[in-house]
Amino acid sequence: MTLERTWTDDSVTKDLAQLRATSPLTHCLTNLVVTGFTANVLLAVGASPAMVIAAEEVEDFAAVAEGLLVNVGTVTSADTDAMNRAARAARAARTPWVLDPVAVGPLRFRTELVGRLLEHGPSIIRGNASEILALVGSSGGGRGADSTSDSREAIEGARELATRTGAVVAVSGAVDYITDGEEVVGVPGGHVLLTKVTGSGCALGAVMAAFLGVSHAPLDAAIGASAVFAAAGERAAAKAQGPGGLAVGLLDELYRLGRPELVA
Amino acid sequence: MTLERTWTDDSVTKDLAQLRATSPLTHCLTNLVVTGFTANVLLAVGASPAMVIAAEEVEDFAAVAEGLLVNVGTVTSADTDAMNRAARAARAARTPWVLDPVAVGPLRFRTELVGRLLEHGPSIIRGNASEILALVGSSGGGRGADSTSDSREAIEGARELATRTGAVVAVSGAVDYITDGEEVVGVPGGHVLLTKVTGSGCALGAVMAAFLGVSHAPLDAAIGASAVFAAAGERAAAKAQGPGGLAVGLLDELYRLGRPELVA
Amino acid sequence: MTLERTWTDDSVTKDLAQLRATSPLTHCLTNLVVTGFTANVLLAVGASPAMVIAAEEVEDFAAVAEGLLVNVGTVTSADTDAMNRAARAARAARTPWVLDPVAVGPLRFRTELVGRLLEHGPSIIRGNASEILALVGSSGGGRGADSTSDSREAIEGARELATRTGAVVAVSGAVDYITDGEEVVGVPGGHVLLTKVTGSGCALGAVMAAFLGVSHAPLDAAIGASAVFAAAGERAAAKAQGPGGLAVGLLDELYRLGRPELVA
Repeated sequence: MTLERTWTDDSVTKDLAQLRATSPLTHCLTNLVVTGFTANVLLAVGASPAMVIAAEEVEDFAAVAEGLLVNVGTVTSADTDAMNRAARAARAARTPWVLDPVAVGPLRFRTELVGRLLEHGPSIIRGNASEILALVGSSGGGRGADSTSDSREAIEGARELATRTGAVVAVSGAVDYITDGEEVVGVPGGHVLLTKVTGSGCALGAVMAAFLGVSHAPLDAAIGASAVFAAAGERAAAKAQGPGGLAVGLLDELYRLGRPELVA
Repeated sequence: MTLERTWTDDSVTKDLAQLRATSPLTHCLTNLVVTGFTANVLLAVGASPAMVIAAEEVEDFAAVAEGLLVNVGTVTSADTDAMNRAARAARAARTPWVLDPVAVGPLRFRTELVGRLLEHGPSIIRGNASEILALVGSSGGGRGADSTSDSREAIEGARELATRTGAVVAVSGAVDYITDGEEVVGVPGGHVLLTKVTGSGCALGAVMAAFLGVSHAPLDAAIGASAVFAAAGERAAAKAQGPGGLAVGLLDELYRLGRPELVA
Repeated sequence: MTLERTWTDDSVTKDLAQLRATSPLTHCLTNLVVTGFTANVLLAVGASPAMVIAAEEVEDFAAVAEGLLVNVGTVTSADTDAMNRAARAARAARTPWVLDPVAVGPLRFRTELVGRLLEHGPSIIRGNASEILALVGSSGGGRGADSTSDSREAIEGARELATRTGAVVAVSGAVDYITDGEEVVGVPGGHVLLTKVTGSGCALGAVMAAFLGVSHAPLDAAIGASAVFAAAGERAAAKAQGPGGLAVGLLDELYRLGRPELVA
């Protein structure tokens, strides 16, 4: 049995209010496909995104940021140095950080990089079921960036990964499952049409990095980000004609969530 | 005289249904301007996009993908190795692939790269009239990424290029012309406002790569992709207030095309 | 006292009409977050964007372009050579160019690059208050890409920077202030919600580069671009439900501005 959490839970609404009040500086090294969308998601939810990627700059920046995201979606050899430096500097400066191991498993180059990044102690690891299962060695991985498994099937793997790494592990899917190795929390909501919007999972990882700047603990940050994202996604999907309108509406709903004073 | 084809043709609707049923893994090495939009177009039409770009990864990935796109729009020297590797691996693994020679002609660096890529036997070459004419040496090329010629003027050049390379050649314009060197097929539709949406041509090339994963032959893939794209573009343009809404609506209409069960 | 200008001023409407009639080729070396949005903004306003970034190509291209933008938002060491070459070639070919010194000040790597770029004589420097103040050495800079100062507080710094460099300096904010070192012009309009759309400032810099291709002088280009952008932003904000719809509507309104024949 897992506990279910939604954005109306007290701790989530409190963290969201705090996020909007303080706009945590959220440093992202993410992939080329989703950079703009991720920045827009962070702005919509209330954070202050900063896509600083130069190896010469990431250490200084990760040290002053309130949260860091490292996403290996389109990583090239030119990026690996910057990613390792950013993660190491984040740890040294006690900046909490999120690792998004996109498509880890079948591709050796990024799988080795993810192995090295794990040594820098991420606060949260967010992935789909195939990626989480690949990290615990119990699956050959997914199909490109897509999962071939259901999020529920990865709960035990997620617990194992959390225990092994000390990170909170979040498995995205129809229900998001989040665990610190002991407690397992389910966050329902979202919408299947979100799988037709590129970068919705990647952007969720960025929102987790923003919540790390305000939440009491990584478990709360992962839950808060998932719950807010799921609620906005659900609302946007109810109005959308298709995936184009959904991506636009997701930004609008992230901005509007819990602000009844904003009239339609 | 050219034959006209639209998305309601039997072979096109069959290929579209097959594409949605099987979600062909479509590997894209494309330009920085359009990466996110291209992924969203592929998801909307029903394919599974994968923007894997590292030289260390492209060979393995191109070999398992169902179709590959190489688009040189913002190519730098760091990308050329990955593009050549991907194209070579695609050919070796019999993964069909699309070459989009953006702005070839006036710029020597990319023109030489395109020359090398052509040696790896693309299944389809997609470009605007200026680009196709530049490839057969009968024009100095366009103006940046824009064509200075009408697609009709490039029909003979396209036939010559197809004969010379063995590829199907698709010339985008008010009417798209597609040829295997013998047959010339015209695909009407689309809308002039699409020229105000960046990457609409580039995304069409990606859709051709997706159709290569399901169609009987490259000629069918190029026609199917063009016909579906033109129909969605036309529908989206009929509702749009401008180019912003058109880009959003294009994604919605690609998703909705031929699905009457999706209510407005 | 500063003079106020809006898009309905004669010189602005004339330049906008000229821009739409001639589609100036606008060469952009900009950051990864905003590349696609910038191209769409340029297309919507009527320019012809070209995102050519290879060191091997930028010199030839900057020489034939009608305006150039160099934006250092996500600059890496691999980009600095191309940026310096482009700026140098632009100056040699008398192509006017815009420098957008994103997040200059606290980060040494980009601050040194901006110093070198300034030697190539930009026609316009566009930034937020923190960036402009950092360039005159009177502030420690902002918070990532965000300003921690009001645009009004940077007017004197902007005058000093204009006098020192010979460039027109544009400070973006609730009111944009633009100066050639003597005259100071204020452009009101826009909307605070635009600060939740990533790249709106960066895209404004690109529109200035496009106006440089048609305006009589850099001061007119900066004013014209700001006035048109502010008017479109204000109209889009009046209809938007949030930042997602605002970004889409901004493109629509840039396209529609001053075209009463386009029905709603």
